[in-house]
Amino acid sequence: MAAKSDIEEGLSFIPKFDAQGLIPVVTVDAASNEVLMVANMNAEALAATLASGKGTYYSRSRGKLWVKGEQSGHGQKVVEILVDCDQDCLIMKVEAEGGQCHVGYRSCFYRRVKKGSPDQLELVGRRVFDPKEVYNK
Amino acid sequence: MAAKSDIEEGLSFIPKFDAQGLIPVVTVDAASNEVLMVANMNAEALAATLASGKGTYYSRSRGKLWVKGEQSGHGQKVVEILVDCDQDCLIMKVEAEGGQCHVGYRSCFYRRVKKGSPDQLELVGRRVFDPKEVYNK
Repeated sequence: MAAKSDIEEGLSFIPKFDAQGLIPVVTVDAASNEVLMVANMNAEALAATLASGKGTYYSRSRGKLWVKGEQSGHGQKVVEILVDCDQDCLIMKVEAEGGQCHVGYRSCFYRRVKKGSPDQLELVGRRVFDPKEVYNK
Repeated sequence: MAAKSDIEEGLSFIPKFDAQGLIPVVTVDAASNEVLMVANMNAEALAATLASGKGTYYSRSRGKLWVKGEQSGHGQKVVEILVDCDQDCLIMKVEAEGGQCHVGYRSCFYRRVKKGSPDQLELVGRRVFDPKEVYNK
């Protein structure tokens, strides 16, 4: 196991996968810095992403690799991948067309907690596609 | 348990904590959208954050709540909190002074994977404080 100082200060990429073999990835619009989605990669998904330059994740619910956009057409071209201090989380900056959330929004984060009513949300996103049209083709 | 459509389309905030009682939080500079850090909250940390307006997390390693900046002085004033489609991840937009990473950088994501050498990193951040001075007071 690498020393803490190597992990935090070194220039070797030694991503730390969790007990399920996953690392969380924050996917960000490379132009605006807007967070589009947060998902997971396993080692295979990370290797595929690095090799293809296409955002590729591991779906826990489906138990398999998932190339973003393979169904919706709204794929991700990887611009760069950043890693955090303890190398257990990634930021992936991407160029991405269209809505990146399966509910039809540009970002998965289309609602915010309402000021003064912390059990309520308010909509801040604008729908950019109709999921029925995109996924039921 | 709430229906999928209520979770994804509704305006009730029903954060989904994982088996360890945690929800991941992506903390973002409210002005620049730069991702500063990714950490976890439990229900108590989220309630404390909402009540105080100060970024408060749950430290797995220390097993307790952690008000960001209580040691370093580099705290976070919460501007807004967004939730994703399945309500199992948060974005917290903050106003934050100084370096937000304990290694001394503004953001924890101060290294990126080197193009053409996917096992190597290169530095993209600039150190803004000396951890020895800040934490060994």
